[in-house]
Amino acid sequence: MTVPIISVVGRSDTGKTTLIEKLLTEMIKRGYKPATIKHDVHGFEIDKEGKDSFRHKKAGAKMTIISSPQKIALVKDVEKDHEIDELAFNFINDVDIIITEGYKKNNKPKIEVFRKEAYPDLLCSKKDNLIAIATNSKHNVNVPQFEINDAKGIVDLIEDKFLNKRKKSSIVLEVNGRLIPLKPFLHTMLLNSIKGLIYSLKGCNNSKKIVIKICN
Amino acid sequence: MTVPIISVVGRSDTGKTTLIEKLLTEMIKRGYKPATIKHDVHGFEIDKEGKDSFRHKKAGAKMTIISSPQKIALVKDVEKDHEIDELAFNFINDVDIIITEGYKKNNKPKIEVFRKEAYPDLLCSKKDNLIAIATNSKHNVNVPQFEINDAKGIVDLIEDKFLNKRKKSSIVLEVNGRLIPLKPFLHTMLLNSIKGLIYSLKGCNNSKKIVIKICN
Repeated sequence: MTVPIISVVGRSDTGKTTLIEKLLTEMIKRGYKPATIKHDVHGFEIDKEGKDSFRHKKAGAKMTIISSPQKIALVKDVEKDHEIDELAFNFINDVDIIITEGYKKNNKPKIEVFRKEAYPDLLCSKKDNLIAIATNSKHNVNVPQFEINDAKGIVDLIEDKFLNKRKKSSIVLEVNGRLIPLKPFLHTMLLNSIKGLIYSLKGCNNSKKIVIKICN
Repeated sequence: MTVPIISVVGRSDTGKTTLIEKLLTEMIKRGYKPATIKHDVHGFEIDKEGKDSFRHKKAGAKMTIISSPQKIALVKDVEKDHEIDELAFNFINDVDIIITEGYKKNNKPKIEVFRKEAYPDLLCSKKDNLIAIATNSKHNVNVPQFEINDAKGIVDLIEDKFLNKRKKSSIVLEVNGRLIPLKPFLHTMLLNSIKGLIYSLKGCNNSKKIVIKICN
């Protein structure tokens, strides 16, 4: 099964990061491994001046990794704003769910954080794939509404909608940096053909996760 | 062709980072796209207290990405010290060469930085896959020796040994997080079988780069 992705959106200063912190804490309590993606349209600084990795990057490395036994960090130059699916495909593995902060325009299921003091109207509607509102108000929309800090209630909903599904095999294909949409027949055909090839290798029978990279 | 990986090693305070900076500058001048990996055995801090991404990570996200149109950064918890090949396979793409700082024990081709004031003996010998020494001394070993800051000379050697090779198709396979060694026959068989499958898809003929991920 591909990992479910939920976007937490909302206007400035409504408490998106605070709600995400609470959702993460609740998910971890329930045994899930969450990842997060923060959309930063303005650019950011992450590394610290003077550190070796900072010096590598500054000297022109297109990408720098620092690897320790506890943690890996990476900084990479890119030439475009990446879609959530591209980020998930290229960088994220071994997690149960991905929560994004931002990405209002993407079509992922969304939770809007609303605070009536910040702005009078909702940012999203049901056509934006809104699945819930965390709010300190009442809204006349046909979407589940939760008290603004009700992480338990929201995680119940996420669990029910996305995490309790029966897991199915899936294959994702990227060619020349572009994700290729696969219709059901092709999906099944490729999945079974490639699984057949790999499973026949010594020690690879019934592998849970297979990653193949080909360079020409 | 898999991307060549060169390790710059040496004792403390010999100037590894400084040499790497110069090598990067020289490589970029010649039109290459380098990446770097820094081995940090002690652990490190990279993100800044109070930032949203820092808060996500602190609240328990196993992995956090910040994505902007110019730069992507990622911090991930891990449970072991990763090998260079695992880091390269999982995180690095679209570069021509990878330079590591550290990783003396790994079997990658190595350049040792030596400064006679720091320590009297070399750290590596030819059996460590030493391909060059950047030094302010003279050594009685059968390995090319360069003046300690001679980035041009060293990049000439790297270009000659690793970057001017004719490019060959290659496939790398990871199963359940473990890189699977492929003998030549299997390598060719898998490469051709999977290329055959993918090339037959619409728009995927003669693709330069193919990445496939399967989850069960």
